[in-house]
Amino acid sequence: MRHIDEETITQAVVESFSSCTNERLRLVVTSLVQHLHAFARDVRLTEEEWFSAIQFLTEAGHITDDKRQEFILLSDTLGLSMLVTALNNRKPRACTETTVLGPFYIEDAPLYDNGADISQGAKGFPCWVKGQVRDIDGHPVAGATMDIWQSDEDGFYDVQYTDIPGPQARARLQTLTNGHFHFRSVLATAYPIPHDGPVGKMLEATGRHPWRPAHLHFLIEAPGFERLITQVFRSDDQYLDSDAVFGVRQTLVANWIQHPPGIAPDGTECSTPFYSLDYDFVLHRTQ
Amino acid sequence: MRHIDEETITQAVVESFSSCTNERLRLVVTSLVQHLHAFARDVRLTEEEWFSAIQFLTEAGHITDDKRQEFILLSDTLGLSMLVTALNNRKPRACTETTVLGPFYIEDAPLYDNGADISQGAKGFPCWVKGQVRDIDGHPVAGATMDIWQSDEDGFYDVQYTDIPGPQARARLQTLTNGHFHFRSVLATAYPIPHDGPVGKMLEATGRHPWRPAHLHFLIEAPGFERLITQVFRSDDQYLDSDAVFGVRQTLVANWIQHPPGIAPDGTECSTPFYSLDYDFVLHRTQ
Ligand SMILES: [Fe+2]
Ligand SMILES: [Fe+2]
Repeated sequence: MRHIDEETITQAVVESFSSCTNERLRLVVTSLVQHLHAFARDVRLTEEEWFSAIQFLTEAGHITDDKRQEFILLSDTLGLSMLVTALNNRKPRACTETTVLGPFYIEDAPLYDNGADISQGAKGFPCWVKGQVRDIDGHPVAGATMDIWQSDEDGFYDVQYTDIPGPQARARLQTLTNGHFHFRSVLATAYPIPHDGPVGKMLEATGRHPWRPAHLHFLIEAPGFERLITQVFRSDDQYLDSDAVFGVRQTLVANWIQHPPGIAPDGTECSTPFYSLDYDFVLHRTQ
Repeated sequence: MRHIDEETITQAVVESFSSCTNERLRLVVTSLVQHLHAFARDVRLTEEEWFSAIQFLTEAGHITDDKRQEFILLSDTLGLSMLVTALNNRKPRACTETTVLGPFYIEDAPLYDNGADISQGAKGFPCWVKGQVRDIDGHPVAGATMDIWQSDEDGFYDVQYTDIPGPQARARLQTLTNGHFHFRSVLATAYPIPHDGPVGKMLEATGRHPWRPAHLHFLIEAPGFERLITQVFRSDDQYLDSDAVFGVRQTLVANWIQHPPGIAPDGTECSTPFYSLDYDFVLHRTQ
């Protein structure tokens, strides 16, 4: 400990954890220190850069509150969230892929029956969505609980507004006995992640944009199956190949079909152009 | 970008920085992402662990203000501060070693003449300190500006008190024409770094203590020389081999001599036991 230099410091820190009785914690902090030090050594981090990093983290901490989570945005934009998601959701190719949860999920969304209009006044072209939830053998999963949430035509989620009466374009519903589900909402659009903080500055300084391609979020749970957190993307979106949070999967890209004004999928008359989406999900059985 | 998995995500993030026109920034963020991902992969970071890390950083951000810097404490306790200090202060062995600045330095400390009592009422045994500042060839450095700061007998720095009239045990003075300096202060004691926040929890969870061995801080500047940031440690301290921030260097450990009540080094009568320290500094010429 008294003969520390730029080579021996790492081993000294690792040894400082030798009394840690939580084996997993010791493994994690040891690896963290080794990789953190390797980074500083590889780039020969300067004292000014180190101080910029301290200031960045401080700003991120100060902008974070119960509505804004800058550290999750940082993890998302550095691809760490997607990596952790991938590491923890290995499953057969036939199952629907998992992707990042994002910062706009909230628990206890309002419950609806199939066929309901979950937009509740959210702005955008009407959009009818339907599909089926199945297991890997093709059997329908009845009574699966689906959380659905999405942005409106201005790219905002309901939780980003302070002047609306209640949840919009956010719902929970259950699959029917044949595993099917269907609901009405609005067309999701591309949106930028919150970029008025340090993460936004980082994106700008590194030549990146803050946009995410249009998508619907789904969180699906059923007894006997792993929870599925995923998103379905619009195939015609310009940001599919540059998603700011690296959440796109080719298997999750779907065709939203555009229709002229006329009879909607639920049999009603629609006086504006509208959209429809048909997308099925395959759950992975709990091991 | 649409075929991301746990292997390809890293390259996708690295490529997202391809439009970054600041070459150095691109190098740093690329290396950061590679090491961060390698860490997550090596330990197969779980989603719960990832979320704990988000919460840890959030807490660190919320406890940080203009008096408390939890991210610097985190960097210090993970040995990153010492590593960055070492990487950026390579110099011949004959020069005084650099160590970490710590969080208690403040600019514009009060100016004193040599011989002054800089304690200004700080608690502790009286301590007389003297020495010389030289260049690597043994020539005295006249008029070098020395910042000195230290904790009192309770282990606190003046800036940690809210009920004292002004700076205590904190000073700036200049070396004489022969490079010598001398002042009176109090005996420095071991102290724990602030550990009532997330860094304290991390230390406890990993079986570490928050203590630093007793030391005096020095920041020495003179035209034509690199700025020297260092600390001098008491050779009889129990924490020399387990400094919470990895700041000890064997070459910076010195003997504080204990004296019975009697005539002090400045010729006055001292009615209590007192201490003396003689320590010289060797500056590195600016390249
Ligand atoms: Fe989203
Ligand atoms: Fe200190």
